[in-house]
Amino acid sequence: MRKNPFKTFPDAPKPLSFSVTRRVRFEEVDALGIVWHGRYPSYFEDVREALGDRYGIGYLDFFREKVAAPLRQLHFEYLKPLSLRENFTIKAKLHWSEAARINLTYEIINEKGELTTSGYSVQMMLDYPEKSVLMVPPPFFQAFLKCWQENFIPDDHHE
Amino acid sequence: MRKNPFKTFPDAPKPLSFSVTRRVRFEEVDALGIVWHGRYPSYFEDVREALGDRYGIGYLDFFREKVAAPLRQLHFEYLKPLSLRENFTIKAKLHWSEAARINLTYEIINEKGELTTSGYSVQMMLDYPEKSVLMVPPPFFQAFLKCWQENFIPDDHHE
Amino acid sequence: MRKNPFKTFPDAPKPLSFSVTRRVRFEEVDALGIVWHGRYPSYFEDVREALGDRYGIGYLDFFREKVAAPLRQLHFEYLKPLSLRENFTIKAKLHWSEAARINLTYEIINEKGELTTSGYSVQMMLDYPEKSVLMVPPPFFQAFLKCWQENFIPDDHHE
Amino acid sequence: MRKNPFKTFPDAPKPLSFSVTRRVRFEEVDALGIVWHGRYPSYFEDVREALGDRYGIGYLDFFREKVAAPLRQLHFEYLKPLSLRENFTIKAKLHWSEAARINLTYEIINEKGELTTSGYSVQMMLDYPEKSVLMVPPPFFQAFLKCWQENFIPDDHHE
Repeated sequence: MRKNPFKTFPDAPKPLSFSVTRRVRFEEVDALGIVWHGRYPSYFEDVREALGDRYGIGYLDFFREKVAAPLRQLHFEYLKPLSLRENFTIKAKLHWSEAARINLTYEIINEKGELTTSGYSVQMMLDYPEKSVLMVPPPFFQAFLKCWQENFIPDDHHE
Repeated sequence: MRKNPFKTFPDAPKPLSFSVTRRVRFEEVDALGIVWHGRYPSYFEDVREALGDRYGIGYLDFFREKVAAPLRQLHFEYLKPLSLRENFTIKAKLHWSEAARINLTYEIINEKGELTTSGYSVQMMLDYPEKSVLMVPPPFFQAFLKCWQENFIPDDHHE
Repeated sequence: MRKNPFKTFPDAPKPLSFSVTRRVRFEEVDALGIVWHGRYPSYFEDVREALGDRYGIGYLDFFREKVAAPLRQLHFEYLKPLSLRENFTIKAKLHWSEAARINLTYEIINEKGELTTSGYSVQMMLDYPEKSVLMVPPPFFQAFLKCWQENFIPDDHHE
Repeated sequence: MRKNPFKTFPDAPKPLSFSVTRRVRFEEVDALGIVWHGRYPSYFEDVREALGDRYGIGYLDFFREKVAAPLRQLHFEYLKPLSLRENFTIKAKLHWSEAARINLTYEIINEKGELTTSGYSVQMMLDYPEKSVLMVPPPFFQAFLKCWQENFIPDDHHE
């Protein structure tokens, strides 16, 4: 997977990032003792929620504006397994887009510092409950984009 | 577990029963190769939905009347494990109650005919969305009870 | 549910307790916006694992001795719902038993301090992989019981 | 998504296909009443298992040869939602590869015949439990490939 699978914009501000830590739970591993591949949407969602909360663009912020932001694409690259009770870090990076989209890349890092999983997601925006696709983001999100572009949003998690 | 953990009524009609079959899925087993105990609510729900559909008392029937029927109690007895790809039958029995309750017992039977799991659930009825507890069932459920008491409801699955 | 659904022993030491906090995740709620009843085994497992780690009697401690400790009974009482993103505390209490059993009671407390859910579990002990039921606990567990009985195990979470 | 995201081979035999039907379960929908995106790995796994069984290349066939076939890539395109209790068909197509890979594309079709979801997966093959990557498939899989190439494998589900 390329580092950034999305359309790039020449004057885009730097991505905003966030990370959470988590430990493999007993119920998440399969008969081989490794995390079942189908648990990873939950891992990505954890960091996506945390990033949304951190920057004021979480799904509750969208709901308040009667906008839903469902996933349109989701992609996983499984490089190494995670095992029973292993600790790991899930990192997300929000990439600039001029469309009404939320473009994120993800990385999972194990205790040894190895990249075990990468991926990306694309979310679109829908009027709720009418469910028509928005061409431009709702006002609060446009305000967020403006602040981001003007570098007023600190990315404390930037590497 | 007693066969019937509920309050019994002297002139109660016979229980109504239903069963569904299912196979253990890869994602349901744990590191020991047996179904993780926390998957069983899903197994019980499968037969509960099927029984509800069969007798016209499913959760969509309740929703139509603006009544929710959430679980108040749920109990499992794990007697034997279920393993990867094993086929099994989930049986439910609906027990007569004069209260606004849905009282069910469950049995899971493996391919050898052995009882692997038993349990029960109690559901109460709530006005939705007000969420006040109903003292008497909604009219459609009372009509169902009347038909059941008068033996007009065939129990094709009765053993 | 009685506070302690288990057989009691006259000279039993006080229960040992532990608690963890957690927040309702988006994927855990159902179409009514409340946690689906079938997610609660996972909540109870979280605190059971944490308590096992705290007192040195976790499932990895058992595995090391080639003993499995599967659930034999699991019971839930659903008193109030938990909603999207609500924070809650899951408490577990380990109750004294002279049999080769692990007897736990559980309580979930919401942000307002209300009891939303209670329950209990009973685990038995099996030789692994032979799967014969143990009549006496493995040596490390007996040592743990002795220390508990002699009051050498501090219960920092005792209320 | 392109119809076939994989490397193509000039003299490849036609893909082999299979499909299963399923109904949305109560526990699979989210607070908006639609299937949570993270349930779809399970949907794809259902048809992948069924296709594996049908053609004798399921994970149990691999296990017998001490080979594991874990996912290396997994991709979803969410086009339309699936709602509570909706019936749907999950189709998989196995695409020819000369490498030790299993390349599948997926489509989910709702009751109206609309494509709601598409995706693909790539599996690699590992010696088990050594976990070294296989450069050539195990003998039983090579035999399967030969039969497929010589058109001895009927594709009853071909559209």
